[in-house]
Amino acid sequence: MNRNEWVSSAVQFAEQHEARSLEQLKALLRIPSVSTLPEHAGDVRRAAEFVAAELQRIGMEHVRLIETTSPEHPAGHPLVVADWLHAEPGPDGKPQPTVLCYGHYDVQPAEPLHEWVSPPFEPEIRDGNLYARGAVDDKGQMWMHVKALEALFATGGGKLPVNVRVVIEGEEEVGGEGIAAYLRQQGEQMRADVALVSDTEMFAPELPTLCVGLRGMIYTEIEARGARTDLHSGMYGGAAPNPLMALAEILTQLEDREGRILIPGIYEQVQAPTPAELAAWSALPFDEESFRTHEVGSPALTGEPGFSVLERLWARPTLEVHGIAGGFTGAGAKTVIPARATAKVSMRLVPDLTWSDTYERFRQYVLSLCPPGIELDVRLLHSGEGLVLSTDNPYVRVATESLRAVFGKDTVFVRGGGSIPIVADFVQLLGMPTVMMGFGLPDDNLHAPNEKFHVANFYRGIQAIVRFLGGVGA
Amino acid sequence: MNRNEWVSSAVQFAEQHEARSLEQLKALLRIPSVSTLPEHAGDVRRAAEFVAAELQRIGMEHVRLIETTSPEHPAGHPLVVADWLHAEPGPDGKPQPTVLCYGHYDVQPAEPLHEWVSPPFEPEIRDGNLYARGAVDDKGQMWMHVKALEALFATGGGKLPVNVRVVIEGEEEVGGEGIAAYLRQQGEQMRADVALVSDTEMFAPELPTLCVGLRGMIYTEIEARGARTDLHSGMYGGAAPNPLMALAEILTQLEDREGRILIPGIYEQVQAPTPAELAAWSALPFDEESFRTHEVGSPALTGEPGFSVLERLWARPTLEVHGIAGGFTGAGAKTVIPARATAKVSMRLVPDLTWSDTYERFRQYVLSLCPPGIELDVRLLHSGEGLVLSTDNPYVRVATESLRAVFGKDTVFVRGGGSIPIVADFVQLLGMPTVMMGFGLPDDNLHAPNEKFHVANFYRGIQAIVRFLGGVGA
Repeated sequence: MNRNEWVSSAVQFAEQHEARSLEQLKALLRIPSVSTLPEHAGDVRRAAEFVAAELQRIGMEHVRLIETTSPEHPAGHPLVVADWLHAEPGPDGKPQPTVLCYGHYDVQPAEPLHEWVSPPFEPEIRDGNLYARGAVDDKGQMWMHVKALEALFATGGGKLPVNVRVVIEGEEEVGGEGIAAYLRQQGEQMRADVALVSDTEMFAPELPTLCVGLRGMIYTEIEARGARTDLHSGMYGGAAPNPLMALAEILTQLEDREGRILIPGIYEQVQAPTPAELAAWSALPFDEESFRTHEVGSPALTGEPGFSVLERLWARPTLEVHGIAGGFTGAGAKTVIPARATAKVSMRLVPDLTWSDTYERFRQYVLSLCPPGIELDVRLLHSGEGLVLSTDNPYVRVATESLRAVFGKDTVFVRGGGSIPIVADFVQLLGMPTVMMGFGLPDDNLHAPNEKFHVANFYRGIQAIVRFLGGVGA
Repeated sequence: MNRNEWVSSAVQFAEQHEARSLEQLKALLRIPSVSTLPEHAGDVRRAAEFVAAELQRIGMEHVRLIETTSPEHPAGHPLVVADWLHAEPGPDGKPQPTVLCYGHYDVQPAEPLHEWVSPPFEPEIRDGNLYARGAVDDKGQMWMHVKALEALFATGGGKLPVNVRVVIEGEEEVGGEGIAAYLRQQGEQMRADVALVSDTEMFAPELPTLCVGLRGMIYTEIEARGARTDLHSGMYGGAAPNPLMALAEILTQLEDREGRILIPGIYEQVQAPTPAELAAWSALPFDEESFRTHEVGSPALTGEPGFSVLERLWARPTLEVHGIAGGFTGAGAKTVIPARATAKVSMRLVPDLTWSDTYERFRQYVLSLCPPGIELDVRLLHSGEGLVLSTDNPYVRVATESLRAVFGKDTVFVRGGGSIPIVADFVQLLGMPTVMMGFGLPDDNLHAPNEKFHVANFYRGIQAIVRFLGGVGA
């Protein structure tokens, strides 16, 4: 059996087993592996064990959970790692390349629960979509890798056409400290010829897409403290500092009303996209009004003046406040001046804004804005570097061919506005070319209620990954 | 037995029964009658029944719960009302006056629970103070009225020296709609010659105090809506409006950084205190630095420039934000741009700023600040008028004599920065002189964790009220 026949058989195997693959994914989605919430630590581990058991079953070797918990990192969740490194050399006697398949089995919190049409951890198919927290980010996409490997093993007599390492983490949604530390510690031993990551999205339905850039980030918490204890606003309003108002004052000095970041020295470091990249973005099927009405659904789009929407999302730093705690937010009224309030504030970064330099500028600037009567603390919750990938390598060519075989279309190259911190380590620490081949859709509600995965894309993703793994070797 | 003997006997009775009065109060404090939280509606009713049972037991008549729930007011809590109107005429044959005793049996929410040294609904005595939610606001002070009436009944052969109406509400902490509607409906039938209210505080320990002014208030909620659903800040940060940032922008335009309200037309309506009142305030034992360190505990005091602390608290309107909901405020990080966020914002009002005019100005101004991409709603949660009482009546003189008999000192006249909406109705609707004789202390942590009532003041309050009720008649 030659490689083409093998790949065809594996694609056929994947097609024949689609229903089972989907049921397995639904079982994994029922495990609420919310990595950010300590009360779900047991669920996160169950999800890791679920994935490890399947890797073992399909034929991967050295399947194991790597504990990432340490005194410095007490809330760690295990890495699932495995390998299979016995690919037969090509006709010219050259060894086959090694592919590192990356994904994550942890998910974002599901709140606000009342906005879900079906419960977040009870997967449900509606209109050809699978609804559940983690459906597309990233359990569903990670599961495509597992199912592609299964198809190749099953049709290859227990062998794979290339060497494969699998690393699946449980901390992607909380900053990925564990995997970063593991990569640094393992170093060359974890090196592969190419990393394959499916944690991004297609630019539009039916349009095969490779993501070649990601934004970095800093995620911070600003704490403002005023009075020693919560105070009655009648008895103290007019004399006691209000930490919530202090945070509002600080936030409005971090960004102007049009969306320009006011922290000194940020924009000076930003690397502009190349003219060729900007031209390619202009050619993408992007309609701003359709984006506003169908994806965002707000009366107007906002953001830094002077840049297109795609530039703002992909190539400009941004700043957001994610939540403000303190005081009273229950039903009805409580007339409290809180002693303490906190704001979760993040920035998205682009090359060449490093997270460490940006965080230091952020911190210094926030502290310089401290209002009278208030004490401030600034904490970094997590961070990651932004990056832009080279597209000039054979792996990108194999990826586009694989996508053409499945979708019948040319691939577009885009950047993503989000952050996958470990990809920066793959590229910058281990020097690995990385292919980000994702199958989400723009309206898949990542990190939001009613997250979904278009079931057809789950199946097509498995086939594309089969073709990629079959195609990168000799 | 003449009146003086009766009063002396009643004071003695109160002293002999102090321990039992305290135990009864503790039992009442164990009922978590949090009126603002629908899940405590049953507890609120239990507290009403507890108070009614004791009024019945001591000898009050027509003791009943008045339901305040209606289609327009679905979350109502019952009023406890009672009367005893058989006081024997004075020596000159003139009928005795009628005193309306007012208090409330509902309490503020206890959150944040972890800041309480002992649980909020498990009363505990430490260092001569009774710690519990509602200890001083207002269960403890309301219970002084009940115990003073008991002492007079017990020592007067089942009679009182004056006619008494008792009205105790369960909605003071949620705006007092029910009692306001009841007063309007009953009108003249509820009229008394004087209302006695113990829901305020002493200016300093050992310093008997009558409160002669209260601030009014509007308590509002501002809702900002942006995108249709929560969005991922990586994928949409730079294009989607952020309702939390919108609220921050609005808040910082309602008040400047020094504490001046920026809503047009507010300060023009404020009635200044008289020169005599300002002079009296200057003579009060008030040390700003001590107030800052012992009561507030913040690095600096804040508020409108150009006015003393007492003027700012008692005679100037203020604006506070009490809580901001929306997005993610749990442990760790979630990179969400919320679809919707709300801020609870109140203003304290002083004569002649009416709540209705102020709310309309507030609402119009907030709506005028709506940022691009955002839709705003403004809602009024509750309101009350501010007032300044006349001190030129015999009831105030009897009150100061009663306080002198208990504390051995002259009474000071102060205003309060808080709001007791029903007092405005007593004064402005029913034309009743009102005496606000309160026994809280400035550090009693009203509306905050570790609320307390100095036990000695609980006992002295009972005696002062016995003397007041015995003294206002002929």
